[in-house]
Amino acid sequence: MTNAALSTDSYQTKTAPLGADELRLMDAYWRASNYLSVGQIYLLDNPLLKEPLKREHIKPRLLGHWGTSPGLNMLYVHLNRVIKRDDLNMIYVIGPGHGGPSLVAHAYLEGTYSEVYPNIGQDAEGMKGLFKQFSFPGGIPSHVAPETPGSIHEGGELGYALSHAYGAAFDNPDLIVACVVGDGEAETGPLATGWHGNKFLNPARDGCVLPILHLNGYKIANPCFLARIPEHELRKFFEGMGYAPLFVEGHDPDKVQQQLAAAMDTAVAEIKRIWTEAREKGNLKRPAWPMIVFRTPKGWTCPSEIEGKKCEDYWRSHQVPMGDMDKPKHIEILQHWMQTYKPAELFDDDGKLRAEFASLAPAGNRRMSDNPHANGGLLLRDLKMPDFRDYAVSVPSPGATTTESARVMGKFLRDVMKLNLNSKNFRLFSPDENNSNRWQDVLEVTNRCYMAEIYPEDDHLSPDGRIMEVLSEHQCQGWLEGYLLTGRHGFFSCYEAFIHIIDSMFNQHAKWLKVCNHIPWRRPVASLNYFLSSHVWRQDHNGFSHQDPGFIDHVVNKKAEVIRVYLPADANTLLSVTDHCLRSRNYVNVVVAGKQPAPQWLTMDQAVKHCAEGLGIWEWASNDKGSEPDVVMACCGDVPTLETLAAVQMLRDHLPELKVRVINVVNLMKLQPSSEHPHGLSDRDFDVLFTKDKPIIFAFHGYPWLIHRLTYRRTNHGNLHVRGYKEEGTTTTPFDMVVLNQLDRFHLVEDVIDRLPQLGSRAAYFKQAIREKLIEHRQYIEKHGDDMPEITGWKWGVQGQPASTHRTSTEGDNT
Amino acid sequence: MTNAALSTDSYQTKTAPLGADELRLMDAYWRASNYLSVGQIYLLDNPLLKEPLKREHIKPRLLGHWGTSPGLNMLYVHLNRVIKRDDLNMIYVIGPGHGGPSLVAHAYLEGTYSEVYPNIGQDAEGMKGLFKQFSFPGGIPSHVAPETPGSIHEGGELGYALSHAYGAAFDNPDLIVACVVGDGEAETGPLATGWHGNKFLNPARDGCVLPILHLNGYKIANPCFLARIPEHELRKFFEGMGYAPLFVEGHDPDKVQQQLAAAMDTAVAEIKRIWTEAREKGNLKRPAWPMIVFRTPKGWTCPSEIEGKKCEDYWRSHQVPMGDMDKPKHIEILQHWMQTYKPAELFDDDGKLRAEFASLAPAGNRRMSDNPHANGGLLLRDLKMPDFRDYAVSVPSPGATTTESARVMGKFLRDVMKLNLNSKNFRLFSPDENNSNRWQDVLEVTNRCYMAEIYPEDDHLSPDGRIMEVLSEHQCQGWLEGYLLTGRHGFFSCYEAFIHIIDSMFNQHAKWLKVCNHIPWRRPVASLNYFLSSHVWRQDHNGFSHQDPGFIDHVVNKKAEVIRVYLPADANTLLSVTDHCLRSRNYVNVVVAGKQPAPQWLTMDQAVKHCAEGLGIWEWASNDKGSEPDVVMACCGDVPTLETLAAVQMLRDHLPELKVRVINVVNLMKLQPSSEHPHGLSDRDFDVLFTKDKPIIFAFHGYPWLIHRLTYRRTNHGNLHVRGYKEEGTTTTPFDMVVLNQLDRFHLVEDVIDRLPQLGSRAAYFKQAIREKLIEHRQYIEKHGDDMPEITGWKWGVQGQPASTHRTSTEGDNT
Ligand SMILES: Cc1ncc(C[n+]2csc(CCOP(=O)(O)OP(=O)(O)O)c2C)c(N)n1
Ligand SMILES: Cc1ncc(C[n+]2csc(CCOP(=O)(O)OP(=O)(O)O)c2C)c(N)n1
Ligand SMILES: [Mg+2]
Ligand SMILES: [Mg+2]
Repeated sequence: MTNAALSTDSYQTKTAPLGADELRLMDAYWRASNYLSVGQIYLLDNPLLKEPLKREHIKPRLLGHWGTSPGLNMLYVHLNRVIKRDDLNMIYVIGPGHGGPSLVAHAYLEGTYSEVYPNIGQDAEGMKGLFKQFSFPGGIPSHVAPETPGSIHEGGELGYALSHAYGAAFDNPDLIVACVVGDGEAETGPLATGWHGNKFLNPARDGCVLPILHLNGYKIANPCFLARIPEHELRKFFEGMGYAPLFVEGHDPDKVQQQLAAAMDTAVAEIKRIWTEAREKGNLKRPAWPMIVFRTPKGWTCPSEIEGKKCEDYWRSHQVPMGDMDKPKHIEILQHWMQTYKPAELFDDDGKLRAEFASLAPAGNRRMSDNPHANGGLLLRDLKMPDFRDYAVSVPSPGATTTESARVMGKFLRDVMKLNLNSKNFRLFSPDENNSNRWQDVLEVTNRCYMAEIYPEDDHLSPDGRIMEVLSEHQCQGWLEGYLLTGRHGFFSCYEAFIHIIDSMFNQHAKWLKVCNHIPWRRPVASLNYFLSSHVWRQDHNGFSHQDPGFIDHVVNKKAEVIRVYLPADANTLLSVTDHCLRSRNYVNVVVAGKQPAPQWLTMDQAVKHCAEGLGIWEWASNDKGSEPDVVMACCGDVPTLETLAAVQMLRDHLPELKVRVINVVNLMKLQPSSEHPHGLSDRDFDVLFTKDKPIIFAFHGYPWLIHRLTYRRTNHGNLHVRGYKEEGTTTTPFDMVVLNQLDRFHLVEDVIDRLPQLGSRAAYFKQAIREKLIEHRQYIEKHGDDMPEITGWKWGVQGQPASTHRTSTEGDNT
Repeated sequence: MTNAALSTDSYQTKTAPLGADELRLMDAYWRASNYLSVGQIYLLDNPLLKEPLKREHIKPRLLGHWGTSPGLNMLYVHLNRVIKRDDLNMIYVIGPGHGGPSLVAHAYLEGTYSEVYPNIGQDAEGMKGLFKQFSFPGGIPSHVAPETPGSIHEGGELGYALSHAYGAAFDNPDLIVACVVGDGEAETGPLATGWHGNKFLNPARDGCVLPILHLNGYKIANPCFLARIPEHELRKFFEGMGYAPLFVEGHDPDKVQQQLAAAMDTAVAEIKRIWTEAREKGNLKRPAWPMIVFRTPKGWTCPSEIEGKKCEDYWRSHQVPMGDMDKPKHIEILQHWMQTYKPAELFDDDGKLRAEFASLAPAGNRRMSDNPHANGGLLLRDLKMPDFRDYAVSVPSPGATTTESARVMGKFLRDVMKLNLNSKNFRLFSPDENNSNRWQDVLEVTNRCYMAEIYPEDDHLSPDGRIMEVLSEHQCQGWLEGYLLTGRHGFFSCYEAFIHIIDSMFNQHAKWLKVCNHIPWRRPVASLNYFLSSHVWRQDHNGFSHQDPGFIDHVVNKKAEVIRVYLPADANTLLSVTDHCLRSRNYVNVVVAGKQPAPQWLTMDQAVKHCAEGLGIWEWASNDKGSEPDVVMACCGDVPTLETLAAVQMLRDHLPELKVRVINVVNLMKLQPSSEHPHGLSDRDFDVLFTKDKPIIFAFHGYPWLIHRLTYRRTNHGNLHVRGYKEEGTTTTPFDMVVLNQLDRFHLVEDVIDRLPQLGSRAAYFKQAIREKLIEHRQYIEKHGDDMPEITGWKWGVQGQPASTHRTSTEGDNT
């Protein structure tokens, strides 16, 4: 295949920009990093191969990935060249994060590694340690993990490189994020849409991403399809996504180096030109950003065949090209392979990279392994925060006010946005659900970010908007992660059901945070905040496929130290929680609250205290003060709280002698034992609140089993009865949704009656009345298509039929 | 923007193929479907507008989505035209599944709806019912749900249309899957990679997908970026993905109809040409399949403005364009809008579509709403199955044999594949992990499917392969779903951690199955089978990011009636489970088992019985027969079973008087109460097995809380102590992984001792020995990088230090 780019592309002209000496030095640096990469995978001792290689110098278990490393290494050397020459501010995001050996090698060669890990010095002893520790018990992971200086992207789970890269580039006007995309990785969905980040990158305000497709032909055991389509197709693919691709291709290192240097020169020149155009000439037309297609052999420079089997430039080089090191022949091959890098030429007698080569690397913060953007906590500044109490909804008495809680949150976020506009460190992310989730007031102070064409009739769209809306939960998550890891703040709003789309990305981020907590040089970053509105109970337009409250279940499987879950029942608690989330660090905060008009329960004062406690008795709703309760009615989530209160009122009306204690939970982790979660209630406190022996009827927002899972060790667990979502639902009325799942006021009352034998036979009449109500409900909704007025108009503390009812109609709801 | 396609594309020549009368009829059909779409969203009564529209004719709650419907409707009419003309076998997959009104309207117009739902007849009364039921309590969902005849794709969660479509097209050589992709949907990751299904579609063997990008410009509240890039860029994008795009664009219905008809003619002709080329001339070069870009206004034909606000051709038409029907003005607008479709012209006095128009629809099975491929159970045939017992691993005594269980499964699957090669109804799917997960023997009878370029050195790649490998879990899942829903069989093998990538897709499929179970005309389809190997305990090359056993937790939140989870501890149980999965219907089966060499416990006879029971006492490992056990050691999963048996052996050696009962669980759902899951053990049986009062030490493959969640209602739950994965791990030795999570034999023994006060102070020595062993372990691995010989060489029933140890090296493991 010819390299069409070089011949036809007007802007890649200087085809051999490297002088002979520069080429020689760069080749040496590349060999050094290749040497160190192989060494990490294979060697336990004899790091400089000063003596003949023996079995005992080789690790008993060979773990890691070679195939991607030589390519990553060459790219690193070339990025260094332009960084140093032009004093560029650059970080390196590696999609195929299994190329850990490469990144560790470079951090070591440029000195950062020894600075942060003094035990791994730049000498033979240090190199031995470097080799041994890799993928070794007590050592370091095989991937570009948090332990690797310069990394913001572990890359174990493939697909998120570009989203992370764009997130890092936003609001960092002089940052270039060089982003390697594996050709295997490029087959994933998230990566496939990741390219389109360029429709949201503003060349005046943001830095840029330099994508490099690592077209080494193979993934694990198969070729990649982008490597097996004609080059003209590949070119169109990238041009069609708005890039100007530069093709670099070959087997011969020297020739490839020349091409690559030319491509880098062109790319950097283009980036600078685009930046200048935008910044000095105000040209905000979406530019065709450069990108590089780097087509080189997988496993480049390893033996081309091993025992007659093709290895270099083939899938067999993906992991460890050669195993079974009990074979003397294999030891010989390894020794020969490593010697092709000529270690004695590269490292001095002490094992230190010779100064001539070492000088190729940039210095200090310009080293990609030491760039502060890759340790975002270093750059993190607190947000300027308005006082959330100023946004309080007035609640003269519980239930007297009706408000859309999410909308109140939106007002608060609007002013957070406003206060930090100049700091350029706060963005909101959503899959085109910002307004649907009721954050539209933020549009008063900023716009939606858009770099594609804008029409006159468009609504709050502009290149400098700070609301990121793209119909990809993966992009939202990836951008936000990239933004946070480089030291900024944000919030992700999403439909509750569809946040599962990023379950796996959440896993990776939570794991990243957990590990960072134990790496002293990694500074804390802002928490990843989720706001899940349009939740399971109010999918009026959508129905069953949009009902899934299980993200919380997923989240709580991760380490307690990094996980927080909040279910505020009204606007004032939501405000308090929001404020808390924006101030917290190194957590994942999940906030679930509705966007529909709903009764408000707590004054701001009460809300602040309630949130500080995380859960507590709502005195005004309880009547057991000074005595023992007969039953505890617990609730967590806005809809369950409403149903619980309605049930309590019914109980009070019909069984006034019954002592009911109402507990509301806003911080879900309070339910866990303190031994399991730092927020957990002590057993004593739990027993005092939930009693040791009284029935507890718990109305929960999510799947009921989660509450059991959190509380199974508590004294009174045997009396705990939980109602929640049990996968029953369709497009129906809001109240019918709770009825279908038996979370409604009537079923809750029934649950109480069933658990209080002392009510005896007089309960029978009450139960019958309840059952009849449920039948009435069904008949009513099937006729009228809306809930009964006594449901929609129900108010706390008001007896009998309501005077006026409010509409449950939500037309235009999700628009 | 001009329609470049028509002018420049050589193959879209006949620009006005519709005669005046044909156009008139098609326009009428389109209007009829638009009318019915609006009617479903708005009307409760007065379906034919025979009297002036009044408030009470209108639904109190307006739910549903209009914006996408008119476009879907026009496309439907045009697909009907070519189906009928050429007697095509076609189904319709709708990405934006919120276009439910459109698909329901067409199923109704062509008669299918009344056939399957006799209460919704083709008369005024039926139309009234049709309108009322939509998004109405007791009615039908708003999306293209299972209730909709002709649907295999609900489309509530956007992104999977193309993957489903390709899955349906595989092995259906005369099927055309017309697949509408929303321009918003096109921003999602899964959809973005979904286009590349064309690299796996064999024109000789498979049918085809006709993608139609519905470029209506908007998603919920924002423009879509594909609608805001220049057409030449969009064209390159599709050409770069290997398609030949046909552009249709406009506002004026008649003009668009002519263009669309021309595009359809071209597309169908091209498809036929490509099929003929491949089938008659043997040309298997990957063709450029046609696709259509359909750029028309969102909400087309609704009022262009409502109260001064732009509506048609704008995001405001996405859902319900106009709410608040208490305003008389709005009633007028609605009436006028609906009258623009001229219902009196379309429907006769009884409310039936006039014959002149009705005759445009194809008949019988050719109706897309009645195509049997969209009710795959109708076409499903059992697989021919070899006897799985023939693949038994010989197990002369427990633990005597060591085998890779996954590999044995692979042999069995090879022969399933072989037996069904002629039936062309079985495929295996994986994200390039087929061999890594040890199914490589299947390559003896088939190849990996590949339609991109194939090199001579390639390994088992061919256009007619039946192993689908693409580095996208989304594609694997989507293809498999499409394949199953159209009546075929398959298995998806995936790394355990990364199956979370499709959590949300699994949700949608499980919900689909749950609903189908209650729709009598939907026939059962083959189960969706997952094989999760490369599991949490053996991520030797990868470490922490690859460790997550939480998919099971996620799965069990869905309805018990559709969920099955198996954790076979050895090859023979895995064989039995595999056989079972392939025979089952309408379930999701999750099978978790390792691929590493591991001891084998049960003979095939024992395994068959064990799997039939789902869980049971392993007598040969227990010593409590005839008496009461002192402790129950339960285990679930291969690694926990190994550790449990090693612990039991230690206990026997050191505390021979201790009575230990060993229970192994293969069917996880057995643990749940029978009231919760059809497989659940009765409480009586559970009590007999697990005792009512003895300590239970449960070694579990996954997160320990899951076991508590499943068993919290059991009598002896208070004595249940579970060990499992608790998010501790890195790149380390296999045994160290269990140690880090305290699931290892030593911790298990300690757990027993701690729970048996009767052991008194003599336990102290034993405990100390155990702690020392753990320290020895750590020191050993940090020095040698491998597990202690006494661990790697441990064998059931053999005392003392092992004679020979097996290597835990796994180089080339994941290759
Ligand atoms: C989402 C995901 N699926 C599967 C894997 C397993 N896996 C590890 S490496 C690899 C191949 C990567 O190929 P490529 O991106 O081309 O990287 P390179 O060739 O540079 O090693 C796969 C499939 C993974 N890491 N992530
Ligand atoms: C994965 C996912 N994220 C978010 C949503 C919420 N949502 C529903 S419709 C819609 C817009 C769809 O736009 P498009 O695909 O263009 O469809 P159309 O314009 O034809 O209605 C969105 C974002 C969803 N359904 N699925
Ligand atoms: Mg590759
Ligand atoms: Mg659209």
